[in-house]
Amino acid sequence: MRTGKGNNNMNATPIFKSDILKARTQQLQEKMRAQGIDGALIKQNADLYYFSGTMQEAYLFMPLSGAPLLMVRRNLSRARAESSLENVIPLGSVREIPRTIAGHGYHIPGLLGLEMDVMPAKLFLYLRDDVFPGVKIADVSHAIREVRMLKSPLEIEWLRQAAEQLNSVIKEVPDLLRPGMTELELSIELEYRLRRAGHQGFMRMRAWNQELFFGHILSGPSGAEPSYFKGATGGKGITPAFSQGASNRVISMGEPVSIDLGGCVTGYMTDQTRMFAIGFLSGELKKAYEAVIEIHYGLREKIRGGETCGRIYEWACNKAASLGYADNFMGYGEAKMPFIGHGIGLEVDELPIFSVRNSMRLEAGMTFAIEPKLIFPGVGHIGVEDTYVLTPEGVEVLTTSPDEMVIITPG
Amino acid sequence: MRTGKGNNNMNATPIFKSDILKARTQQLQEKMRAQGIDGALIKQNADLYYFSGTMQEAYLFMPLSGAPLLMVRRNLSRARAESSLENVIPLGSVREIPRTIAGHGYHIPGLLGLEMDVMPAKLFLYLRDDVFPGVKIADVSHAIREVRMLKSPLEIEWLRQAAEQLNSVIKEVPDLLRPGMTELELSIELEYRLRRAGHQGFMRMRAWNQELFFGHILSGPSGAEPSYFKGATGGKGITPAFSQGASNRVISMGEPVSIDLGGCVTGYMTDQTRMFAIGFLSGELKKAYEAVIEIHYGLREKIRGGETCGRIYEWACNKAASLGYADNFMGYGEAKMPFIGHGIGLEVDELPIFSVRNSMRLEAGMTFAIEPKLIFPGVGHIGVEDTYVLTPEGVEVLTTSPDEMVIITPG
Repeated sequence: MRTGKGNNNMNATPIFKSDILKARTQQLQEKMRAQGIDGALIKQNADLYYFSGTMQEAYLFMPLSGAPLLMVRRNLSRARAESSLENVIPLGSVREIPRTIAGHGYHIPGLLGLEMDVMPAKLFLYLRDDVFPGVKIADVSHAIREVRMLKSPLEIEWLRQAAEQLNSVIKEVPDLLRPGMTELELSIELEYRLRRAGHQGFMRMRAWNQELFFGHILSGPSGAEPSYFKGATGGKGITPAFSQGASNRVISMGEPVSIDLGGCVTGYMTDQTRMFAIGFLSGELKKAYEAVIEIHYGLREKIRGGETCGRIYEWACNKAASLGYADNFMGYGEAKMPFIGHGIGLEVDELPIFSVRNSMRLEAGMTFAIEPKLIFPGVGHIGVEDTYVLTPEGVEVLTTSPDEMVIITPG
Repeated sequence: MRTGKGNNNMNATPIFKSDILKARTQQLQEKMRAQGIDGALIKQNADLYYFSGTMQEAYLFMPLSGAPLLMVRRNLSRARAESSLENVIPLGSVREIPRTIAGHGYHIPGLLGLEMDVMPAKLFLYLRDDVFPGVKIADVSHAIREVRMLKSPLEIEWLRQAAEQLNSVIKEVPDLLRPGMTELELSIELEYRLRRAGHQGFMRMRAWNQELFFGHILSGPSGAEPSYFKGATGGKGITPAFSQGASNRVISMGEPVSIDLGGCVTGYMTDQTRMFAIGFLSGELKKAYEAVIEIHYGLREKIRGGETCGRIYEWACNKAASLGYADNFMGYGEAKMPFIGHGIGLEVDELPIFSVRNSMRLEAGMTFAIEPKLIFPGVGHIGVEDTYVLTPEGVEVLTTSPDEMVIITPG
């Protein structure tokens, strides 16, 4: 049989140029040095992509100084085309890693960093006991997450593009949303348009057991339905087998409809929530909307370099309480979530987390979603979420949809 | 503010009735007994759903005998509505688990089973060292996967429904597929229709770092593009940040187009691959298609209770070689994958795995996808995949799309 070129990626331009990867490498090495870690083995998809530019099946050895070594199980030619790293080599089996590292002139670390927050116990024990016997292991995941937390101009540009992708779809909501349609029907139409606008579909969350599919379209009481999803709202979903997000509930006039979705470009995601209603909305819910906007705009002023996540969270809670919404802010009763925002980038749950008593200090270059929400059991929720980058001057909003509540006139 | 009913799931009918959960519990307890494990803590989403009927944020304590205890962090009322287990209780913090278990009359296990194939190292060490000090830990994941491998009539019925959901969409391919459209455009149209037919969207894979979005639509050379996805084919995707599946490649006349998708009902998935072409296909590729069908139909005869996965794999390789396709079967060169099929249910990568030298014996009640594929570098691939249930009489095919290659007349 006639065969052509084996790999149509051979001429791909690497996503991250070598100077970007070099800067990331040095940042991680600095943090490793501070922890006494003298080598790390990186394996998780998002981390691998971030430090190598490719997401093939591979292990990335990160030495304490000098260039990292990407050991690829499959597919080597793709990894070589996609990565701008110099050292991209084949790896037969995991057991060969120490010999492979040594063979390339690196010393075997005395304290080896692994992504212990995500690496399965079985693989961890195999690496510790069988592959690297005698080597001490440390958790390098927090250091990795701290490096990934500070975005480069290129990453911020992709977040901007993801925000515009999302906005191009949200613009169509007034033409789509009609009384009698279900949350699910609206969600499917928006998912379809997001895909056509370039969304990769698959969304990454780092935390074990956290799953996501584009986001959550919730109407009326669904907006107050807690779920296993780590958020103040979660939704009922269409099955207990994936019990979050849009359900088969029919949307009626006069109900709050929240559209909480992520755009995604080159793996980078932005998160945005906007409120809609058909026909009208009660004065009480309009008042709640004004309160959410007041909290949100207040947060835009409060979030500054040097502030801590915990103080920002505390300010938001106090503000909500002063407006009379202490019991409704970020959930109610047992379902209350002690946070108001989260870092975002290649994963929806990156650092920093704006949560209770979190002493992490804010820095320019961080990107995050802020999502004050008021939950009213049996009625629904009101929330406005935007994605931001922190600059030396304060927050800059990346999400671009107008944040007014949209009351749609039924056609 | 007026508030209504706090939880609209309160009257939900549990997905799995209590006798089904009881049977599953007893099967797992039997396997635990054989391993000397006298208690297990189940946490992963799919396992939790399987043994409790709910996927809320919870830990399920499985004693060696008697009823399990579901300890729910959130959301308790939802877990109580969705689960038919008797003991569904709140859990404040993970540290309270031993006290909670003991308080409900269970003894603290001497050898505790954890899902070590998927549980992150950090959580594993926390449970072992801080929550259960002095307790020995064993990996209960294989036992869980073995129980889940054998399906009940209800599960098989959902797999049938998932197959019909998928077929209802595949039927539309001849109306959708036109020269000049991209793989991605076709994929988006099929995803949209799958969602409208009830697909939950999110698809679960158990193996760490394995990710999936509906499946893979591949045309021409894309069909020979290996990726990080653990399959003989993977596709290029639209970004190295999720480098699998459909790409922006334009589909032309005379090329093999493979549509490898999953249907999904109540969390249960079926996997099916069908071949299409627009206008015509070369005699060589038609011959390859005949060979794949011959291998596939031969496998239907060979797969019987008592056979081992490894012998089935070996038979397929020999058959492919005898037909002249030794180098093309299940990949080529470094990208060759030593397997021809996989168990399927709540996860796409369940047991059994039809892989080289695997001594696992086949049993009635197993459900799996068989996917012989011939890969031609630079040209594409030809493959036909079906999902089966093994009965005492042999395999019964669950997927329902006709398996002839469809040559579409361009309109």
